[in-house]
Amino acid sequence: MRLVRFTTSGGPTSIGVLEGEKVVPVALADGDARLLEIAMSRQRPDGIGPAIPVDDVTLLSPLAQPASIRDFITFEDHYANFLRGQTGAVDIPAEWYRTPVFYFTNPAVVHGPDTEIPHPVTDCLDYELEVAVVLGRGGSDVTVEEAPDLIAGYTLFNDFSARDVQKVEMALGLGPSKCKDFAHALGPCLATPDELGGAPGTPRGQVRARVNGREYGGDDLGHMQHSFARLISHASTASRLRPGDVLGSGTAATGCIMELAGLHGGAAYPWLEPGDVVELEAEGIGVLRNTIGPRRG
Amino acid sequence: MRLVRFTTSGGPTSIGVLEGEKVVPVALADGDARLLEIAMSRQRPDGIGPAIPVDDVTLLSPLAQPASIRDFITFEDHYANFLRGQTGAVDIPAEWYRTPVFYFTNPAVVHGPDTEIPHPVTDCLDYELEVAVVLGRGGSDVTVEEAPDLIAGYTLFNDFSARDVQKVEMALGLGPSKCKDFAHALGPCLATPDELGGAPGTPRGQVRARVNGREYGGDDLGHMQHSFARLISHASTASRLRPGDVLGSGTAATGCIMELAGLHGGAAYPWLEPGDVVELEAEGIGVLRNTIGPRRG
Repeated sequence: MRLVRFTTSGGPTSIGVLEGEKVVPVALADGDARLLEIAMSRQRPDGIGPAIPVDDVTLLSPLAQPASIRDFITFEDHYANFLRGQTGAVDIPAEWYRTPVFYFTNPAVVHGPDTEIPHPVTDCLDYELEVAVVLGRGGSDVTVEEAPDLIAGYTLFNDFSARDVQKVEMALGLGPSKCKDFAHALGPCLATPDELGGAPGTPRGQVRARVNGREYGGDDLGHMQHSFARLISHASTASRLRPGDVLGSGTAATGCIMELAGLHGGAAYPWLEPGDVVELEAEGIGVLRNTIGPRRG
Repeated sequence: MRLVRFTTSGGPTSIGVLEGEKVVPVALADGDARLLEIAMSRQRPDGIGPAIPVDDVTLLSPLAQPASIRDFITFEDHYANFLRGQTGAVDIPAEWYRTPVFYFTNPAVVHGPDTEIPHPVTDCLDYELEVAVVLGRGGSDVTVEEAPDLIAGYTLFNDFSARDVQKVEMALGLGPSKCKDFAHALGPCLATPDELGGAPGTPRGQVRARVNGREYGGDDLGHMQHSFARLISHASTASRLRPGDVLGSGTAATGCIMELAGLHGGAAYPWLEPGDVVELEAEGIGVLRNTIGPRRG
């Protein structure tokens, strides 16, 4: 089941189920609780109106307001390239193979599909190709075995990044903040776990990115060093997860310009410019498309 | 005006104004919107019941649920000690003097005054002596001059930290996460800006800490390298602040055990143990007292 939040001209914000090229309205959207409840039930509710061609609706972020966003680094090749580019380190710390690592990021700047992303103060604007798990239940000290019971579903997550700002921030010792606090995109749907391959909490499936229609990098969720179930368990240890929490996989290998430019040169992979169209795609979830907005005056 | 959230046995959660040793109930607490609204009005509402001795109520965190928590580093001596202890660096990067630096932390683990703090998985449990500004209004691209208009008030903020976990995490490049995601304490009240000295957005006043009644470190808010108004402006740039956002000052100089042990030896300043009582105090705000809970089994 692929759940969407959407509006039609003049209509209220609704929850629908994406079936082929149509959206079947199944509920009115009142905050995020109802959508998460439907996802957790794994049962497609009866429609409350006629199916609408998806081209006739405006899709919104599947969550109106995440409770929090944690972003991990789980793809080995991306982490190696990240460390080399940001800190000059050549070796991945051994601890990373044993324990997932994450940071909290800004939950107040979520954008949906087909929106314009506001340009921050940067000359090095990048996208990041990620899949995020969305929690429908909270918990503390959740085991890896229990973790799949908390999962409402998965969505694409574009963690837009200002690489020049990031490089300065990394040297200050507190991790990324302003380089990533201006915009995230989520969408186009919340796909329940059965839409993806793999075992519970360990989805499989190809992910890829395009810029202005040109194929950029891609990877497979099977290459995550730590499964989503493990990420959930780790985040919950001696802490507290809430419904509506979003946990990002971190960038897939070759899933951003920083990496591609490092491998193939900046001339072949220039930073994003106003008007550029970024598409992320994942098997079972769909395509998340956003356009870069104008530079700040 | 010093606003508190409180309960009495059998009564609903209420908002009160702390006047001397009494709490004057002024409203029922329904989420955090009403408390923030009262703070922003700067007007003490009429009481809705008789004043109650503060010893007869249970004070709660002034915010039931922060929208987000950003924590900065603004005290130079603390930053120097932090870098030396965590990364071995001896010089503060020049960029820190020009631009505030912060990270997002977990808004889901807030504790109020006089509560027991759950012990995380650590052998090096520390407190951090901070003051936080609480926003009553949101905004984007807020100037330093406009920033005081967003401020609902100030509260004490104990950013409990697991230093052994932190040291491992700092080497992984994404900043602090599990070392600080288990508990924060806020309280005992939300003090409107007139309760503190200094200019709007640039409060002054002594802050100090005690452990088991013994005086530990202390500092003055006047030593912040960047004012709260500047922190708000910086956080809002090309981003979005919301009512209920909490922005921490970062640890005052000598405001944690890591620093004191570095200066005077670990024998004089051992890590926190179950049963230890940590008190933070700030002029105009009061005393925030918490007890360390038992070790995890």
